[in-house]
Parts: sequence; C-alpha cells; structure tokens
Amino acid sequence: MENTQVLLRSRPTGVAQADNFQIVRSVAGEPADGEIVVRNHYLSVEPAMRGWIADASNYSQPVEIGSVMRALAAGEVIASRSADVAVGDHVMGWFGWQEIAVVPASAVMRKVIARDLPLSLSLGVLGLNGITALLAFRKLGQPAAGNSVVVSTAAGAVGSIVGQLARLAGCRTVGITSGAAKMRACTESFGYDVALNYREPGLQAGVAAACPDGVDIYFDNTAGAISDSVMPNLAIGARIVVCGTAAISDWTVPQTGPRVERHILVKRARMQGFVIFDHAAEFDEAVEELAQRVRMGELAYREHILQGLDSCPDALAMLYRGENDGKLIIRLVGSERGN
Amino acid sequence: MENTQVLLRSRPTGVAQADNFQIVRSVAGEPADGEIVVRNHYLSVEPAMRGWIADASNYSQPVEIGSVMRALAAGEVIASRSADVAVGDHVMGWFGWQEIAVVPASAVMRKVIARDLPLSLSLGVLGLNGITALLAFRKLGQPAAGNSVVVSTAAGAVGSIVGQLARLAGCRTVGITSGAAKMRACTESFGYDVALNYREPGLQAGVAAACPDGVDIYFDNTAGAISDSVMPNLAIGARIVVCGTAAISDWTVPQTGPRVERHILVKRARMQGFVIFDHAAEFDEAVEELAQRVRMGELAYREHILQGLDSCPDALAMLYRGENDGKLIIRLVGSERGN
Repeated sequence: MENTQVLLRSRPTGVAQADNFQIVRSVAGEPADGEIVVRNHYLSVEPAMRGWIADASNYSQPVEIGSVMRALAAGEVIASRSADVAVGDHVMGWFGWQEIAVVPASAVMRKVIARDLPLSLSLGVLGLNGITALLAFRKLGQPAAGNSVVVSTAAGAVGSIVGQLARLAGCRTVGITSGAAKMRACTESFGYDVALNYREPGLQAGVAAACPDGVDIYFDNTAGAISDSVMPNLAIGARIVVCGTAAISDWTVPQTGPRVERHILVKRARMQGFVIFDHAAEFDEAVEELAQRVRMGELAYREHILQGLDSCPDALAMLYRGENDGKLIIRLVGSERGN
Repeated sequence: MENTQVLLRSRPTGVAQADNFQIVRSVAGEPADGEIVVRNHYLSVEPAMRGWIADASNYSQPVEIGSVMRALAAGEVIASRSADVAVGDHVMGWFGWQEIAVVPASAVMRKVIARDLPLSLSLGVLGLNGITALLAFRKLGQPAAGNSVVVSTAAGAVGSIVGQLARLAGCRTVGITSGAAKMRACTESFGYDVALNYREPGLQAGVAAACPDGVDIYFDNTAGAISDSVMPNLAIGARIVVCGTAAISDWTVPQTGPRVERHILVKRARMQGFVIFDHAAEFDEAVEELAQRVRMGELAYREHILQGLDSCPDALAMLYRGENDGKLIIRLVGSERGN
C-alpha cells in the first residue's frame, strides 16, 4: 500500500523549522503478528515535540534522524493482527506524521468510543491536551473555590481548558497570552476573568493587580520571563504546576533567570512538574468527564486545522510563532468532519 | 531589676555585622497582667535571623531599628502574672538577645518538660532546628528506604539532624559542607555516607558520583551555587525541600542563576518551601521523638557555645563565616551545664 511519511532530517537547535523535515513516498509493509495498520485521519502538532527531537535530557528517547516524526494521531484501523484491536476501530495513539501507520497494537493510547463527537477532538480537548489540563490542574494545582489561578499560554490547547476548569471550580482566573484575538478568546470563550498580554510591559504589575491577594495556582506552560513575572506575586501556600517550558527555545544552552528559592521558601510554595504519561491509568475517567462537559456545552474548544501532510514540516515552527488559533491539527482525509 | 540588651542599631545590607548592633544597659520593668519575666540562660543564633532583620519580603515582620534583637532563648521564669506559666518553669521562646525578658506569656513557644537533658538543647536538637529537620524531612521529603538524600549545610544545626534522620530511615546520605573538620563531622557523627566539599571544584560531578541513580531528596539550606550543582542530578519524582537560602547573602538585589523549570518538569520533581512556624501543632510530638533519640544515643549533636552577651553582635556574622562547630549558642549563666 502506498504511503507518505514525514521524516526528521536533521536535529534542530532551538525550534525545528521546515527544513529539519523531509517528506518521502514509501510503501507500507504488511502487519506482523501483534501489529495493526492505521489510516491516519488527523495528526497532532504540539509544543512537546520540540522536546522529543531535542538531544537534551527529556522524558522520552529522542526521535532518531531519518525516522518518522513521532506524533500522536487519530484514525481508523484498516487491518489488524492483534486480538485487542479490530478493523473499523477508531483509535488515537503513537502513529506518527504519516498517512499509514503499521505499528504494534501497543501504540494505541486510547480507543475512541464516543462516536458522537468529532474524531479530531481526541487530539485536543479529549486527548492529551484536555487530559493534561484536567489531571495537572486537579492533582497538582489542588484548586479550591475562591483561589486565584494564573495560566500561561492561556489560549493554548492546554491553557484554554485549564481556564475553563478553573472557572468551573469557582476560581478567579487570569490568562496570560498575546495579541488581541487570543486575549478576546480568553475572556469570551475560555473562562478567564482577566487576560494579560505578555508582550506589553508591566506584566508583573498586571498579575499583582489581577490577583490582589496573590496567586494561589500558577499553571505554567512557558517558564521564562512570563514565570518571572508571576513568581513574585505568589500567595502563601501557592502551587506552581510546571507543565511546559514553551518560552525557552533551547535548553541545550544554559538558561538563567531570577532565582525562585526565596519565593518558594517565604510563600511555602510548591512547584511541581507534570508529565502526562505518568498518569495513563486515569485517562479514561478524565476523557469521560471532558466529553460530558463538551456535550453539555461547558467546555469550549478551538481547532486550527491545516490540510494535508505537506503542512507538517512548518507546523511546529508555526506553533512556536504563535500563529495558530486553537489546537493545531493536520487533516489527512477529505471530509470536513472526518469522523 | 538591672538588664542588658542587644539592640538592632542599623539595618544591614547582606549579613549583619557587629556594628549593626549595640549593647545597652537598662532596667527591666515590672510584668503587666498576662506577662512573665524570664531570666535567659541561653540565646540562640541562627541563619534565619538575617531574614528577620532584612527589609525584603519575609515570613515575619522585620525587627525594628532600636529594638531588642529578636531571638529564641531558653531560661527560667522568675516572675509571672499569667495563669499559664509558673515561677520556676523552664521555657523556650521569643525572649530576645537580652538577660531579662519581660514578655507576654504568649512569647513562650514551649515549656521544657524533660529536665534530664541540658536546657541548651531546647535551642538546637530539641528546639526549632531539630523540629525543622524532623518535620521538613518527613513531611516534604517523604523519605523511603533506599532513597538518596543530599543535604546542604550538612554539618549545620538543621542539616546534621537531617543526615541522621535520613540514615535512620534507611536512606543513602550525602552531605555538602566545607572544610576538613566539618566533612569529618558529617561522616563520623552526623550519619552521612559521603561528605562533599562545595569549596572544591566538581561538586556537580561529585553529587552525580555519590548518587548514581539520582537524588531522591534534596534538603536545601543554601540555594545558590550548591543547589545549582544538585538540580541537574535529580531522580524522577525527586523532592526538594527548600528550608533556607544561606548561600545568598542579600535578596534585596536581583539574584539570578540557572533556571530550574526544565529539571522540575522532566524529573516530575517537587520543590516546596518549609517554614517551621506553620507547624506549631506538631512541635511537642516532634520534640518527644527527638529527645528519646538523644537519650538512646541515636542522635548526635554539637553545640558551639560563646560566653556572655558581648558575644552577640558578631555572632550572626560568625555563623555566616562558617566558623562555628555545631549549633551556635550564647550562654548567659555561669555554670557549665546551666540546666
């Protein structure tokens, strides 16, 4: 069967650009025992990909040069030599940036049961983004009604869900983003009481004004200068959820900034890292709650859909340029809905 | 009644030196209703004093210029107009750097019940140092047998107890200190398997070699360059107990260093500040355990005792110069034991 794949051509320093990737035509092999064949409908693009292809210490092995770019994808099973997965199943998992994935059945992260919702959602609000938002916010953030919650990349695929979950938990919500459109999305769609623009001066004062009693939960997707503006504003007993470091383009070179120890000590704050893959046992329950909230209209989401595999090479750079409006997804099937 | 007091004369930048203080003779007043009069036997000197007299954000109001230097002390009640405290009681509390303290009964932090142990211990191993070591290590460090534990200021009043408690909990223990005498004290008296000298080059490699599977608990009393050498060596799920920042002499000026966010994220680490005054409800139980361990010979301690109130002005600077060998205490009574 004919296939088209996106390979990692060279290891970038900093954010991967289009020429770090290469599109090749190939032939998909036959599945071996225990393997399945998935026709990808949607490919995911996410900030964490930068880490997956970096040489620096990370929570997974780096993608090897010349191999298919690691990615989550959602699609339909078109052949199966595994007892666990049937032809016709809708699945989400590690299928890579390619049209056809011949993979072990263990590459499936979740079977998509609820077919009343678009399949693409399993890469966003009902995928790792939504699950991350829910589990990291609840388990590490430990929200209480009345808490002040600050979120960086507030309009992003994770941040937009954190804002809404925080609002639903009775918190005061402050979103940090940039640009008029995203600021409007924060306050109009994503549950934020206040949106702050990190590209304007005075972010630290802005956080202080928005959280006069201090920041109880800082959900951090960026690190860097944005975090430096939040840390001096912590309330006593604050929780800092370290979920991503999107503002730092390259950790292989030393990155310095204001020391956090005194804030942590004086405010008895707790700063903790969250990696979603540690929490797989709780995925199904989280997706069930998220899906129900989507159906009830409690959880808004946005998707920014690019058409075709040719969109892949520049997609990660586009994400880091902040040009997407919603979860960035690449569609490989023709239909509008693709479910 | 004649009194001698040590006043804060001027606010230091950085560590207080002798000329920031002033010794004055005065007359102790009569106790008002609810007040007691304590004759101090021992005065405490501790790193946290730097914070108490600093202008920078802290967990307590700064000591005012011209007032008696805030300090913990241990002594005997010689007059009482409080129903809670009796003449003859041995007490430890906020009695300040002075011979006679006329204070509200609420200044008493603990009555010293166990008279079989020296009263001076209530300022060290049976005082806030010991209680801090026990509660911070247990509650925030959450030790498990086999964990690798790294402690900065390993031979200090808190660190020396953490090392022994970690050893008793079945952990592998690595103490960071400086100088041959303190390194020897770490391995011979304070329960450390390995002592590392932070004044020698290669601390980061030394930590890595001492903890080949990574650092599970970093009990941090220093921040600064010592912490920078530990953070790249964290194990997955590491706990960083932020208990003090002794390596940073002045937080009123910006202090920068390597960013920690990536370590926290990739290692799913948890960094949390500990302030002992949040845990007063657990003091008695902690002291009971510590006292029993001292009696059983399980918990070694060292005291560095200076004689007389004249020792006060330079004592804090002496502590930061690292010249003390054990908990630094000033004795105001003549006897060797003073109990």
